[in-house]
Amino acid sequence: MKEHELRLTVRDYECDLQGIVNNAVYLNYLEHARHTFLLKDGIDFAKLHKQGVDLVVSRIEIDYKQSLSSGDEFIVTSSMHKEGHLRVIFNQKINRALDNKLVVNAKVIGVGIKGGRPIRVTDIEGFKDIE
Amino acid sequence: MKEHELRLTVRDYECDLQGIVNNAVYLNYLEHARHTFLLKDGIDFAKLHKQGVDLVVSRIEIDYKQSLSSGDEFIVTSSMHKEGHLRVIFNQKINRALDNKLVVNAKVIGVGIKGGRPIRVTDIEGFKDIE
Amino acid sequence: MKEHELRLTVRDYECDLQGIVNNAVYLNYLEHARHTFLLKDGIDFAKLHKQGVDLVVSRIEIDYKQSLSSGDEFIVTSSMHKEGHLRVIFNQKINRALDNKLVVNAKVIGVGIKGGRPIRVTDIEGFKDIE
Amino acid sequence: MKEHELRLTVRDYECDLQGIVNNAVYLNYLEHARHTFLLKDGIDFAKLHKQGVDLVVSRIEIDYKQSLSSGDEFIVTSSMHKEGHLRVIFNQKINRALDNKLVVNAKVIGVGIKGGRPIRVTDIEGFKDIE
Repeated sequence: MKEHELRLTVRDYECDLQGIVNNAVYLNYLEHARHTFLLKDGIDFAKLHKQGVDLVVSRIEIDYKQSLSSGDEFIVTSSMHKEGHLRVIFNQKINRALDNKLVVNAKVIGVGIKGGRPIRVTDIEGFKDIE
Repeated sequence: MKEHELRLTVRDYECDLQGIVNNAVYLNYLEHARHTFLLKDGIDFAKLHKQGVDLVVSRIEIDYKQSLSSGDEFIVTSSMHKEGHLRVIFNQKINRALDNKLVVNAKVIGVGIKGGRPIRVTDIEGFKDIE
Repeated sequence: MKEHELRLTVRDYECDLQGIVNNAVYLNYLEHARHTFLLKDGIDFAKLHKQGVDLVVSRIEIDYKQSLSSGDEFIVTSSMHKEGHLRVIFNQKINRALDNKLVVNAKVIGVGIKGGRPIRVTDIEGFKDIE
Repeated sequence: MKEHELRLTVRDYECDLQGIVNNAVYLNYLEHARHTFLLKDGIDFAKLHKQGVDLVVSRIEIDYKQSLSSGDEFIVTSSMHKEGHLRVIFNQKINRALDNKLVVNAKVIGVGIKGGRPIRVTDIEGFKDIE
């Protein structure tokens, strides 16, 4: 199984009136980590869209364990594997860099869509060898 | 069980390069619907924060069924109930107004935090009578 | 000169750690008001993009006079006129509904792009009669 | 005059349905660059807020010269100086890393607020020696 790490820093505009990163922003972090991960394998989300193939999220389960706040550095760890013919599962977690505390734990299910219909994962350019 | 409906319209900046509403934006919609719902019962998220009580999300499960895109009107339906002493469960769904198609189905678990510690839901102003 | 009004409410996730609407979010409000305004005249930002014409912002001047915060209702007032052959000028302001206080005053310059090149405003579908 | 550089990468969720970074997102980039810049001098936006001092933007002038899109790396260059007793001027620009093309040129005026009133820039912790 492939794994990927991305280190980022909280930006102040990502914090809400509670002074902590807003719950929706973590999905931004997770998406950016997935796309960076895929790019390493030559899978380009934006390019695929232009070619008529859209990678979309079909389900997310996310547990919020700790809050990140202004200036915090953190690491997004992602792994991915295939489930059946149509689904890619990403297991992702975010840890605060300072103390390695678990911030967020998530499972994200992605599918490929072409002309409005699901396509086999292995038919997507770059996903040929995914396990 | 209480229920609440909120009707909104997709704003163009909420769409991403695929031309559809980005997955993280739905959490914005759901949060805005929850806060509007709570306000009806006199529970003010921003005011509670100033009083030292923070309502935070501890878990979200969300299924993406359809995509919304530019100009789509949609309805967020929310219900809430208490689970144990510490958790409020929100069941939320988003339907496209045009054809009533289910767009998103979500379960959101919220908890109240005071001084870094979970507090009983019924100890939060406005939540006294929640079932 | 045409004028347009849009009434909106601050959503909690739009506020930052200072408890007020973040400066960038006002550009979201202004864009949404412009697109709603244009739609009334049959000018559809998303549809134009699909036809190969992109309306883009070339300059913004914005004065922040007051802050909006959680729950505030506000009105975005927009007017537009043509300047030369290539530019559309939007004068926009945001007033808080409660006391009509001026929140933001902005001038936004937009241009039409086709195949990487500026096009005459009056060549854009729906802009034929703009003054 | 002090100067600061920050190198960032476009994230896919920052692009809108035109496939380019949305105009409001550049204000996010510019703010993040300013806050990073200030932090180097020991001026912490979030900490100041907790101490009752808010740095707020009073005016932005921004010219959009080129568009950034998916995966683009870019450099935000910021300089700052004092104007009168109450205002800090930030001159900021964004250049695409690939070809050094100017993407955005901006002038941002910031003021310090305490108890609802403007305060002298030099009375803000860390700004004592600003010129």
